[in-house]
Amino acid sequence: MIFEKDKFKDECGVFAIYNHNHASAHTALGLHALQHRGQEAAGIVTYQDGKFYSEKGKGHVGDIFSDEKVIDKLPGKFAIGHNRYSTSGETNLRNVQPIFAEFEFGGFALSHNGNLTNAKTLRKNLIKQGCIFQSTLDTEIIIHLMATSRHHEVVDRFIDSLRQVEGAYSLVALCNESIIGVRDPHGVRPLVLGKIENESWILASETCALDIIGASYIRDIEPGEMVVLQNNTIQSIRPFQKKISKFCIFEYIYFARPDSFVDGKSVYEARKKIGSVLALESHINADLVIPVPDSGVPAAIGYSKESKIPYELGIIRNHYVGRTFIEPGDKIRHLGVKLKHNANQYLVKNKKVILVDDSIVRGTTSKKIVEMVRNAGAKEVHLRIASPPTTHSCFYGVDTPDRKELIAANNDTEKIRKEINVDSLAFISINGLYRAMGLEYTEKESFYCDACFTGNYAITLTDILGGDTSKQLSLLSESNK
Amino acid sequence: MIFEKDKFKDECGVFAIYNHNHASAHTALGLHALQHRGQEAAGIVTYQDGKFYSEKGKGHVGDIFSDEKVIDKLPGKFAIGHNRYSTSGETNLRNVQPIFAEFEFGGFALSHNGNLTNAKTLRKNLIKQGCIFQSTLDTEIIIHLMATSRHHEVVDRFIDSLRQVEGAYSLVALCNESIIGVRDPHGVRPLVLGKIENESWILASETCALDIIGASYIRDIEPGEMVVLQNNTIQSIRPFQKKISKFCIFEYIYFARPDSFVDGKSVYEARKKIGSVLALESHINADLVIPVPDSGVPAAIGYSKESKIPYELGIIRNHYVGRTFIEPGDKIRHLGVKLKHNANQYLVKNKKVILVDDSIVRGTTSKKIVEMVRNAGAKEVHLRIASPPTTHSCFYGVDTPDRKELIAANNDTEKIRKEINVDSLAFISINGLYRAMGLEYTEKESFYCDACFTGNYAITLTDILGGDTSKQLSLLSESNK
Amino acid sequence: MIFEKDKFKDECGVFAIYNHNHASAHTALGLHALQHRGQEAAGIVTYQDGKFYSEKGKGHVGDIFSDEKVIDKLPGKFAIGHNRYSTSGETNLRNVQPIFAEFEFGGFALSHNGNLTNAKTLRKNLIKQGCIFQSTLDTEIIIHLMATSRHHEVVDRFIDSLRQVEGAYSLVALCNESIIGVRDPHGVRPLVLGKIENESWILASETCALDIIGASYIRDIEPGEMVVLQNNTIQSIRPFQKKISKFCIFEYIYFARPDSFVDGKSVYEARKKIGSVLALESHINADLVIPVPDSGVPAAIGYSKESKIPYELGIIRNHYVGRTFIEPGDKIRHLGVKLKHNANQYLVKNKKVILVDDSIVRGTTSKKIVEMVRNAGAKEVHLRIASPPTTHSCFYGVDTPDRKELIAANNDTEKIRKEINVDSLAFISINGLYRAMGLEYTEKESFYCDACFTGNYAITLTDILGGDTSKQLSLLSESNK
Amino acid sequence: MIFEKDKFKDECGVFAIYNHNHASAHTALGLHALQHRGQEAAGIVTYQDGKFYSEKGKGHVGDIFSDEKVIDKLPGKFAIGHNRYSTSGETNLRNVQPIFAEFEFGGFALSHNGNLTNAKTLRKNLIKQGCIFQSTLDTEIIIHLMATSRHHEVVDRFIDSLRQVEGAYSLVALCNESIIGVRDPHGVRPLVLGKIENESWILASETCALDIIGASYIRDIEPGEMVVLQNNTIQSIRPFQKKISKFCIFEYIYFARPDSFVDGKSVYEARKKIGSVLALESHINADLVIPVPDSGVPAAIGYSKESKIPYELGIIRNHYVGRTFIEPGDKIRHLGVKLKHNANQYLVKNKKVILVDDSIVRGTTSKKIVEMVRNAGAKEVHLRIASPPTTHSCFYGVDTPDRKELIAANNDTEKIRKEINVDSLAFISINGLYRAMGLEYTEKESFYCDACFTGNYAITLTDILGGDTSKQLSLLSESNK
Repeated sequence: MIFEKDKFKDECGVFAIYNHNHASAHTALGLHALQHRGQEAAGIVTYQDGKFYSEKGKGHVGDIFSDEKVIDKLPGKFAIGHNRYSTSGETNLRNVQPIFAEFEFGGFALSHNGNLTNAKTLRKNLIKQGCIFQSTLDTEIIIHLMATSRHHEVVDRFIDSLRQVEGAYSLVALCNESIIGVRDPHGVRPLVLGKIENESWILASETCALDIIGASYIRDIEPGEMVVLQNNTIQSIRPFQKKISKFCIFEYIYFARPDSFVDGKSVYEARKKIGSVLALESHINADLVIPVPDSGVPAAIGYSKESKIPYELGIIRNHYVGRTFIEPGDKIRHLGVKLKHNANQYLVKNKKVILVDDSIVRGTTSKKIVEMVRNAGAKEVHLRIASPPTTHSCFYGVDTPDRKELIAANNDTEKIRKEINVDSLAFISINGLYRAMGLEYTEKESFYCDACFTGNYAITLTDILGGDTSKQLSLLSESNK
Repeated sequence: MIFEKDKFKDECGVFAIYNHNHASAHTALGLHALQHRGQEAAGIVTYQDGKFYSEKGKGHVGDIFSDEKVIDKLPGKFAIGHNRYSTSGETNLRNVQPIFAEFEFGGFALSHNGNLTNAKTLRKNLIKQGCIFQSTLDTEIIIHLMATSRHHEVVDRFIDSLRQVEGAYSLVALCNESIIGVRDPHGVRPLVLGKIENESWILASETCALDIIGASYIRDIEPGEMVVLQNNTIQSIRPFQKKISKFCIFEYIYFARPDSFVDGKSVYEARKKIGSVLALESHINADLVIPVPDSGVPAAIGYSKESKIPYELGIIRNHYVGRTFIEPGDKIRHLGVKLKHNANQYLVKNKKVILVDDSIVRGTTSKKIVEMVRNAGAKEVHLRIASPPTTHSCFYGVDTPDRKELIAANNDTEKIRKEINVDSLAFISINGLYRAMGLEYTEKESFYCDACFTGNYAITLTDILGGDTSKQLSLLSESNK
Repeated sequence: MIFEKDKFKDECGVFAIYNHNHASAHTALGLHALQHRGQEAAGIVTYQDGKFYSEKGKGHVGDIFSDEKVIDKLPGKFAIGHNRYSTSGETNLRNVQPIFAEFEFGGFALSHNGNLTNAKTLRKNLIKQGCIFQSTLDTEIIIHLMATSRHHEVVDRFIDSLRQVEGAYSLVALCNESIIGVRDPHGVRPLVLGKIENESWILASETCALDIIGASYIRDIEPGEMVVLQNNTIQSIRPFQKKISKFCIFEYIYFARPDSFVDGKSVYEARKKIGSVLALESHINADLVIPVPDSGVPAAIGYSKESKIPYELGIIRNHYVGRTFIEPGDKIRHLGVKLKHNANQYLVKNKKVILVDDSIVRGTTSKKIVEMVRNAGAKEVHLRIASPPTTHSCFYGVDTPDRKELIAANNDTEKIRKEINVDSLAFISINGLYRAMGLEYTEKESFYCDACFTGNYAITLTDILGGDTSKQLSLLSESNK
Repeated sequence: MIFEKDKFKDECGVFAIYNHNHASAHTALGLHALQHRGQEAAGIVTYQDGKFYSEKGKGHVGDIFSDEKVIDKLPGKFAIGHNRYSTSGETNLRNVQPIFAEFEFGGFALSHNGNLTNAKTLRKNLIKQGCIFQSTLDTEIIIHLMATSRHHEVVDRFIDSLRQVEGAYSLVALCNESIIGVRDPHGVRPLVLGKIENESWILASETCALDIIGASYIRDIEPGEMVVLQNNTIQSIRPFQKKISKFCIFEYIYFARPDSFVDGKSVYEARKKIGSVLALESHINADLVIPVPDSGVPAAIGYSKESKIPYELGIIRNHYVGRTFIEPGDKIRHLGVKLKHNANQYLVKNKKVILVDDSIVRGTTSKKIVEMVRNAGAKEVHLRIASPPTTHSCFYGVDTPDRKELIAANNDTEKIRKEINVDSLAFISINGLYRAMGLEYTEKESFYCDACFTGNYAITLTDILGGDTSKQLSLLSESNK
């Protein structure tokens, strides 16, 4: 609980399958593999013989779609699905994707990973024109823009709509026997293409969703690319002006599953290399390298290899988690952490330990983990973070707290060290991070979206700043002081 | 799912707390920490002002006892609890412990980890005398023997009863404001004593249940020892003839949590040492050491250190598990494994890999894991098992399949290797296992209960063999041919 | 179950309350009193300080809204509610009313009892214009027509929208601190106005919803009248051309609760008079008059008084009904009927009995009831129906089966008598029915909507017949032959 | 809710079926027909091929047993069932009958309607002997007495046990392929014998349970009679000394369903006659006779016939009842009554009305009903009660409040009249009640158990009074002053 609470949250996973006899069952499995991208709700829409079928629910994929009866309600060879992590408090089923609309030309279902940055502005205009919104989702704006487009063909309407939106998106759409996939011009969110058996194509947020159904990874959809799966062919369209690539570097740090490839790289390998560079940048003598489970594990392995300090499971995770327990009395502190973790006293007692975690958001959990390790008898506790300080909020599809809650937005490293109560604290540098990815960091032309570390927001934030990008950067860095 | 299915199962976790203002909440937390010992059901009984309070439910502790309303129904400063793993198919609430009985002298609640080996025989006699059983639990026999005892004091009745039963047991009992804990004369199952704050004592199956509530570990209850917590004192009684110690060695191999101490040893350290000895006994050249998650992790770390072959997360675990998914079509094989695990293709492709697992029971899961790793592109797959071949069933409180289902009971290592389809297969030897525990193995006087590896059943199996121990050993080894 | 299954179904109950401190709780109570008008789902929308609050659920009002927590989620002094009976199979929460839309000028919530007869035609046009529908409800059309209206004020937009729709409707709407109520120009569905305490007004389908909250009945909203409750005043508007009144006569026969007044008449009194006229029209000698419970009770009392034949409870109702039982073996016939009813053998044995029911739809249940009474030993069974033969479907908000399933659409009385297996069968005549209501029946200018008995559809059926009313009548009577 | 709350409660319904292919499904239907005798929980036990099968649940029969899967878990041609109304607050599944015990000779299942008056005394002794009770049910005492009996045959043990218990009971038992039914020597609770098809016998609390499955009523089991259904024969045994018959007269007044025969009489007919006698005894001029639904209906029909005052439905019942609604504000009084009932204003306005109800317990509901009728405009309200004042608690299987809560135990009729606020109030006299049953009342030798009206407790109340019957009567009448 607590641990996840102090992480950035990915907002969605998407999946689509074209021309497969078990389309809905495979979609359910793909969504299960993408469960880490969104645990609040999930939905699947399929198409067969002129009709669309939709099933949605709150909770985990395995609870919603494992029942054969539910799968039987989703016939057809064409399906798209969606895992939702909700940023707002609205747990309404209306906001569960895929969203669906009946157009003049037929039905259209859409799954979205990302966030539109001019959503409020567009929404206001559409309401003025007489559009009635059924949800509070950004994604619905795309649908209304399609409905009021003067184009006739669905692909043209879709492109017409997307040219008006700004922000980050990887989308999969289902329109009768066609599947469409598209990444925004900057390619902020991931989307991979896979194939299974002869003529069945898959689109998914990460390759782990291909692995679970035995599909092969073909390639990533490129930034600004739209693929149309139709009549047993795959067509690639480039509907947007070319823009610089800005893949979210946090996918490598925390969001994606370590066994996935995204944007062409192994996530596990990236994390291990980050751990190595971190060890080089912030060496310290210690007895043990201990990962904060589970997200700190690959970086800790890299750190241990580089530093030659033994890797040990100094914090054990309890996999059984139910609803929230009550806190019985004053003597039990940090119950949230203890419900899921326990320090291995045998290992840490009287030892100098290095804890490796992927990131610090508010710092609240780190503080509790450190206290737990100290209570278990550690002599020294050193914390190493496999990302630079997270100083800015994300507006591109990641749920981040307000800047004022980000500990690193308001404190320097020494202050954070004191707050968390460690003997030493080090973050990897932004340069080190890029080096771990095999690149050199240059502020002007950085290859990834690193706005959460640098405040360098590459995509206009119309809703927030009225589209004035120059204002945007200064304002945001202003607020950083 | 599948993974757990091919493991031995522990049958229970017990917890008791004496004289604490938050007795029921602490018991719930202790049971949560012991969740790995039994996930089918759980129960808590408390005592206050002449009345006993009981709450039981099926499912995980966090689902049954996290609600404040449930805790409020369990007032009092004295509590015992129980986690149940059911061996029989009976999911009846009647069989959920603690069991409770109203005696002439008052109420008595009992939680049991273990198994009685003369239960059927005793039960038959008791029914003949007019006893009416309310459950199919062995544990109820202890209660009826107490009810029909001629002694007056509850402790005397309890001892009288226990002297008539055979088998393995760690028991905690609640009788008004007294808590009683006892281990069978051979000390097969674990039971530790802890203390929190001034005068509040705890009994629990493992030390991880002490850690979660911030209690200190005092010592293990000894084989054949009974402790009585009463009038704010702790009294130790030795009601049985002294017998040789026979602590279950499988607790170190798989059952106990790695952060626990049981029978005075760190489980994590034991596992790592087993991994080291395994590496020495069965060295092979390879590129990677990969744990089968999560139970293979500590042994894999030990193996890697000893062999200098790098430790890597070659198999990733998906923590989100719901109900069983359907298998969609022939092309998806081993879905059960894939729902929980995925091979990390980047790592294993074209590599010689050593997989480290804690044990092989039927071999079915190992086979699927190996196939998954091979499909991910591994050049060679070598399997190393951190326990000797499991050739015999357990009758002392562990749920094991019939001997005919144990792959090692019916096949030699080479046959198993072929069946599982690995390039090499090695188990740690029984001598190596004892060495890892710091002892020399001698068949006649082995320090642990190792019957599942050796057929050396130290405690009489009255129900099965009519109590003829000589017959017992020969018969069981007979069936082993 | 079975009994209800062979009845016409009302489709909805509506309720609104203006300016009351317990608006949502009173709405829940009002909906509970109107539960007979729709049992599939219910919803409430309230308004407070610029925000709308909505809670909906499937099932009975008492299950959805009796929890204080739910009521607490519905703050504010202005509320509308809705009980839904679903005609289509769609049990989707999307189709649960009140529906809500965010307009440029603010939010607007709407509850509808009735059915629009040009819905399909309007819907098609709206989709062509780029409107996206969120439900399959007719009611949503009104909302979209409002959204695309060129008027500015909400009341003007509402009127603009209603002028384009045809069909039957009683509507209540909530727009910030205003409540609007309106009946269609023919006044097919009921809507009453009540008052509670000083300045709190209520709109409801029937007066029984006023009684439960202790409100006084003021008057019926008139056909074609719109009332606007705003700024603590009530304003009456006549936005439509005057049309002849066509209140649904079936409300008196079956739909409304016997303790209600609708369209200014006591339902109980109407039913009793129908029973009296029926007795006069179809006298027969018998020993007992027995109501088919519960809908036949008032007519049976009237019949008994007129005929002087004693009224007796010859059929007893079992109020406990759960899910459907299985039929165990061939010997149990008509289990559906028996789950809810039993003939009182003592009474009916060797007697000539007159059964009084309100209507016959398919005839299936009547047949089973008659068999049950015969099996209990009745010597003769005579059936008297307190409505004329139902020969036509309703398109004005009542769920009726296809004409081909209406037994009276396809068979004369003698054929029905044989099918149902009674000694004699009589329906009240259409003239008799009007006489019971205190009027003379004239086909041309009948005072009520009696289309289900006469095929005399007063409101255009655009969706079905393209709006050609002349064609409409002939076509429909055609199909009647 | 509220209405039921102010009634005496029957405590159970029992059902048994011998040698039928659909034994469990028929038992479920029988229990459904007997649902009015107990709504808290229900259970069924069946026997087939040496094994017993048991399914129990809380709630209504239709919710527990309508599912085919549950019925499939209850194979066999021999079944008994039980409906439970709980007197204590214990909603534990342990207390749901039939209870089951494993004896030396095999299994034995038992369903009980009634109450043992020496239960506590016997229980204390049994616990002293080492018996362990699994429930707080009286019924379990019978089982333990059987277990410790020195007889060998099950019927002998059963008789041996019953000879030691005092109180009221109608029991059905299942022992392998035998069914046993027995009524206590006074025959306080009903038990009827029925037959279906060739050789299949049924035992049930009331005949309505025979009707639902199409079985014929054969006869009542007689007071003190035991019937044994075995080897396709029915055997009648008289194991007890003959005692005077004391059938519970309240079964006719309220408990039994009006379509049932119990103790050889039609319940409906009895109630009508009580209404007639009541009309004769307490005539008053009025405009309408109105039943308090539903239990007052037959008596009101009888009253109306005798008095010639028209019978009308002046109070309408809402059949939809969910969980408890909250009371919104001070202005809504008597919400409990209003959730279920509404006065028919049209009828009662300015009328002199006679309300007929079956009984008054605390008087709370009557008061609210009267107020509701007055608020609807009644000019005068006269209340007529179809039973004498209930002045004493029942100890023979009926849940009655403490004497101090019985309004008639502490107030004379005039005081009650004032409290309930009616213009006149009359109860039928005890003589009138017997006359309605066709008998003369004589205090010494009254034919029925009428203790709740007279304090004439025919069966010893050992637990309460230590078995001193002389003391018993005086004490009880003492407390009556």
